[in-house]
Amino acid sequence: MQAVYYERNATIRVGEVTPVPPGPGQVQIQVAFGGICGTDLGIYHGKMNWRVAPSQILGHEISGTVAALGKGVTGLALGDPVTVMPLAPCGTCPACAAGHSHICHNLKFMGIDAPGGFQSRWTVPVHTVFKLPPELPLKRAALIEPIAVACHDVRMGELRAGEFAVIIGGGPIGTLIALVARQVGARVLLSEINPHRLRFLQELGFEAVDPREVELPKRVEERTGGAGADVVFEVTGHPSGIETATKLPRTRGRIVIVGIFGKPAPVDLFRFFWRELRLIGARVYEAQDFDRAIALAAAGELPFDQLITDVLPLSEAHQGIQRMDSGGDVMKILLACD
Amino acid sequence: MQAVYYERNATIRVGEVTPVPPGPGQVQIQVAFGGICGTDLGIYHGKMNWRVAPSQILGHEISGTVAALGKGVTGLALGDPVTVMPLAPCGTCPACAAGHSHICHNLKFMGIDAPGGFQSRWTVPVHTVFKLPPELPLKRAALIEPIAVACHDVRMGELRAGEFAVIIGGGPIGTLIALVARQVGARVLLSEINPHRLRFLQELGFEAVDPREVELPKRVEERTGGAGADVVFEVTGHPSGIETATKLPRTRGRIVIVGIFGKPAPVDLFRFFWRELRLIGARVYEAQDFDRAIALAAAGELPFDQLITDVLPLSEAHQGIQRMDSGGDVMKILLACD
Repeated sequence: MQAVYYERNATIRVGEVTPVPPGPGQVQIQVAFGGICGTDLGIYHGKMNWRVAPSQILGHEISGTVAALGKGVTGLALGDPVTVMPLAPCGTCPACAAGHSHICHNLKFMGIDAPGGFQSRWTVPVHTVFKLPPELPLKRAALIEPIAVACHDVRMGELRAGEFAVIIGGGPIGTLIALVARQVGARVLLSEINPHRLRFLQELGFEAVDPREVELPKRVEERTGGAGADVVFEVTGHPSGIETATKLPRTRGRIVIVGIFGKPAPVDLFRFFWRELRLIGARVYEAQDFDRAIALAAAGELPFDQLITDVLPLSEAHQGIQRMDSGGDVMKILLACD
Repeated sequence: MQAVYYERNATIRVGEVTPVPPGPGQVQIQVAFGGICGTDLGIYHGKMNWRVAPSQILGHEISGTVAALGKGVTGLALGDPVTVMPLAPCGTCPACAAGHSHICHNLKFMGIDAPGGFQSRWTVPVHTVFKLPPELPLKRAALIEPIAVACHDVRMGELRAGEFAVIIGGGPIGTLIALVARQVGARVLLSEINPHRLRFLQELGFEAVDPREVELPKRVEERTGGAGADVVFEVTGHPSGIETATKLPRTRGRIVIVGIFGKPAPVDLFRFFWRELRLIGARVYEAQDFDRAIALAAAGELPFDQLITDVLPLSEAHQGIQRMDSGGDVMKILLACD
């Protein structure tokens, strides 16, 4: 059996792994597909060495089938198609006690802080396993985790039908936010600088512009009768992203922080005061976001499959990460793990 | 009749003014007391020259009685005690259309963008006039405008009974927020560096600490069982204030931006993401905040009167501004305007 290991110093190694038999309350999954995430690229570049111990198995966007059940596990049968919500909260900290276990103070994120799913057989706690409808292809099901991120972001931003949303950053997460936002009934404008992604977004029917060519605040004013955007999603984690985002909302409009900022960025707090704006941090997802993502993927109405640029064998994980890292004409690459 | 004029270059002039007879829909007020506000200090230092035209009459924290009624004004009688919500919205911009007229895109703030109330007779639109209960002393009623600011801030922060609030900055507005927060049933911790204000806050029964002596994040952890604060009010407008504020909230806690930031300040947006924090801009007040402030002031249960350090004649406006500006053992100075 093979697994994809992060070994630091930008080294990805595909090597042997011994499958872990499921203990009480655990499920062993025959992994079908695993998506490469922006977080994996961050790990690859050593940006998360404070969290990722050497020889960690990566992978947290996973689909597969039940291969073995530990003692006491009910509600699942061998061969059931499943995905995994890769969060292991402590259950006892103040965040867990307050019902925010997805952002537990001591959260272990599987694939970062604990072994992930880029391996043929992945053993996980049963509470992380979500059963999939039989009509949902396993390839598409590998997108459920990032779709759940988008569902969470849209829900945290309280985006409603008829509202105007701006998404700054049109990578995989920005695109999924745009799809979920449009499905909610919102009008959507995307800002992106990669010409391949701009064309991809436009082919999906979105208004997508290069902020170096189009003055975004003016465009938003035009689209909203001078009012401003209802919700802005900042998905770049770049100082220029929050600088632009702050100029766009209407009075009492919202900015959702999705991007990961490596260091404090200048924010025009006067604008927050002046227009009574709200900034909303949104991290990962909750069970209801996974439920919604599964329903959206199973319904087959949204063009999620178009985000899958390629499927590579597990042995080519390093090439897949490098290709996504190069940032050209690529959205999401899956690894075939079985 | 005398008025207090701002003449730029840190010059305050008390000079003659001809009272304006009330036109249709207007009310002329015999001004009793007017409070000097931090905003007046900002104007005095030239920080608002982009808004304040020369020879502007200052003053927006006003109590008085009805001196004359314009045509078509109903519901008021000569001699009625009143205060003024000094906002003149345009009524037609997108913010007004959305019901946010208090932060109208073209808002004229009386006492900044339009003549204020530091004069014996002030003529204002009837929609700005709030009738006062007869038992409410006019001296205390001059505090209703800043009390309404505090009511608005606490309401925007959705502070509830049993929650833990931190207020960074213990000047007049910070102190009023603390009083309103405690009245709501919240536990309160204040951060302030002026030793006079620290003692004043402690005498009011608050836990108030100097952040240079007490490690605020640690203190908040101790007070909240490691969870963090429910709501933090940033009332300083200083970069160190938002830096500290960001460290204090619990998961999904709120930071209310009350202070006025002269330029963009570094903000730890990763912390917003990590703990799913919310930043909420809060500016001035709405009619319901004035109603609540009047009710609180009339009830007489909160020690608002203790905030009034001194009452000076209108002719000593310059000295009053300088004394508040010196920042020693002073909270609020009123001008006797009649």
